[in-house]
Amino acid sequence: MFFSGESKLTVPCERFIVIYRIWGREEESHAMAKDICVEQTVEFPFELVPKGLIADNIVGRIEAFEPYDSESFKTSISFPVEGTSNEFTQFLNIVFGNISLKPGIRVERLELPEAILKNFKGPRFGRSGLRELLGVEKRPLLFTALKPMGLTNKEFAELAYKFALGGIDIIKDDHGISNQAFSPFEERVKLCSEAVEKANRETGYKSIYVPNITSGSSEVVKRARKAKELGAGGLLIAPGLTGLDNMKEIAEDDSIALPIITHPAFQGSYVMSNNGISHQALFGQIARLAGADCTIYPNFGGRFSFSRDECISIANACEEDIGSLKKIFPCPAGGMSLESIPESLKVYGNNVIFLIGGGLFKHGPDIIENSRYFRRLIEPVIKERIDN
Amino acid sequence: MFFSGESKLTVPCERFIVIYRIWGREEESHAMAKDICVEQTVEFPFELVPKGLIADNIVGRIEAFEPYDSESFKTSISFPVEGTSNEFTQFLNIVFGNISLKPGIRVERLELPEAILKNFKGPRFGRSGLRELLGVEKRPLLFTALKPMGLTNKEFAELAYKFALGGIDIIKDDHGISNQAFSPFEERVKLCSEAVEKANRETGYKSIYVPNITSGSSEVVKRARKAKELGAGGLLIAPGLTGLDNMKEIAEDDSIALPIITHPAFQGSYVMSNNGISHQALFGQIARLAGADCTIYPNFGGRFSFSRDECISIANACEEDIGSLKKIFPCPAGGMSLESIPESLKVYGNNVIFLIGGGLFKHGPDIIENSRYFRRLIEPVIKERIDN
Repeated sequence: MFFSGESKLTVPCERFIVIYRIWGREEESHAMAKDICVEQTVEFPFELVPKGLIADNIVGRIEAFEPYDSESFKTSISFPVEGTSNEFTQFLNIVFGNISLKPGIRVERLELPEAILKNFKGPRFGRSGLRELLGVEKRPLLFTALKPMGLTNKEFAELAYKFALGGIDIIKDDHGISNQAFSPFEERVKLCSEAVEKANRETGYKSIYVPNITSGSSEVVKRARKAKELGAGGLLIAPGLTGLDNMKEIAEDDSIALPIITHPAFQGSYVMSNNGISHQALFGQIARLAGADCTIYPNFGGRFSFSRDECISIANACEEDIGSLKKIFPCPAGGMSLESIPESLKVYGNNVIFLIGGGLFKHGPDIIENSRYFRRLIEPVIKERIDN
Repeated sequence: MFFSGESKLTVPCERFIVIYRIWGREEESHAMAKDICVEQTVEFPFELVPKGLIADNIVGRIEAFEPYDSESFKTSISFPVEGTSNEFTQFLNIVFGNISLKPGIRVERLELPEAILKNFKGPRFGRSGLRELLGVEKRPLLFTALKPMGLTNKEFAELAYKFALGGIDIIKDDHGISNQAFSPFEERVKLCSEAVEKANRETGYKSIYVPNITSGSSEVVKRARKAKELGAGGLLIAPGLTGLDNMKEIAEDDSIALPIITHPAFQGSYVMSNNGISHQALFGQIARLAGADCTIYPNFGGRFSFSRDECISIANACEEDIGSLKKIFPCPAGGMSLESIPESLKVYGNNVIFLIGGGLFKHGPDIIENSRYFRRLIEPVIKERIDN
């Protein structure tokens, strides 16, 4: 009665699937699943939704509903691809926009058809591209951060030089180093890029310096271009601060074309309770959709709270099939210590990037020697694996 | 031993304060407060942080620590303004970047000196500007949404016309309406702006149409400019999807200069557990910093989970003193019904915007009459208040 009914959706829309976990008893969980179908699409009293095209095509549809464990249920809900406008933001809005405001609902996994995936170029380098860039065929990659905040750019560049001399593959800014008066961005990128390049000439390695470009919405792309011009080998972005689509735009920009490393700052609340997004979906699937070549997350056993299983689920999502999106590197971090490397090697295998920041300063007074020690912890294990 | 020590921070930095609530027993909560000081700044083994300038100026400092209730503590931690690079993203990173990945920490409030606030223009219109624009001196403003997703633009424009005829002040796109094939953005903005303008000529009211411009990172500003050109009277953005700084850029852009309404989609997880940001800080203080003139949140008693006290805390943060930032409108929504208006009037007073979407369709079969009824629910109460 309210609408003239001239909707153009005369053919059924192709659909994508979101798997949710819902906490509660069966009856209330099923009611919540039905609620998700409406809340995430028409957000309208269901009894008043125009019958036919909108009720049948636009509203979410429960495709499966079954127990997850004794206190929660798992439901697959399909949504129309056309509802996403071919936009990452509107896709994320359908997946978890309004229901982020309701307790006891978690996005577990995404199952996406080509009709959605065609909007995502995905990681530009992926595992093989990053290995080729760094000249590292088989072993895990070594990664560290320039810190602490407050050093001058000259000091950061000295550190970068030593890390690279010691054989660290990737040397990034700490994610809190931005464009502070004591460490302006352009000068830092120039000095650190040159320092790593100088070390490479001495070692023959192909280490890269990766500046943090997290910044204002339209500033990010300017910093990305400037970083490329000044010799940076990759880019660090915290999409919790810039927006996920911002990272996707940088990753997909052919004029930039540098490896993208995603940092989880400000994203943690999504994985901290029964409301949110699973570790595998957020730091694995969504990070890949957003074009990350490497996804940093806090490793189990460090100073954060992720469990071993949650970390493994992220690593699995980095390599599972998602259309033709490239496989990427999981990057356990967050209080990783040199002592934890042997255990982590067992868990992650060879296709991993180990990020050790502060822990690399703790081993001894010589940063170059500490870096070499880090590398020696990895290489014999890998050699043995490859030889056998 | 690791650093040359040429840090330029020879004078103490000005500092800003974040008040956190930490769950746990006293000893562990105090240890967590100390951890926040390090994690959010140098992120480095504290015993190795260079003494003097960095340890004294850059690292966070516990200014107060006291019980909050029987299970949590309240601590005020100060951070150096220089650490923020005068950037919103890096400011947010210091406030809650890495610790978003740790359980049991919530940002309760921000206390910001002029040295921080100078980086924020804040709301352009605020309460008085929006009242002037809409020609409404005293009463609460009436707000509704064009829905359901799947209608054509012609249908949306017909609805917008009827809402405006019925005296609704602000008519926005549902936040899931973007640029779908069945409702392309430009056509919709043109038709709906014209429809509302036509109604205004008939009624003498000054209703506005507010399109949703939430979209890709660099697309948002294009849509904002296009919306302005086509006659839109305000802009809806969901900063959980675009990034908070993206909204700030649009709000501060003098070539756009339209009222900004912020939508909470995808932000809910920040307020859903003991890890996160308080309702008042996220939907009040941070929304104002990001330039919102009106902040939408789910009202108590609706289909979401916010309590009455949490809603009141948001409303308070909309009008508390934050430097010279303008006061803004709280906008309770999310399953607001016409029946809930009298109670909400008692709670919020006159300086509020009531957003009723689907509920406006439920009252009867005539949208114009339903809209008038909404208005009649408000006006007598306000008249009585003003007369007495």
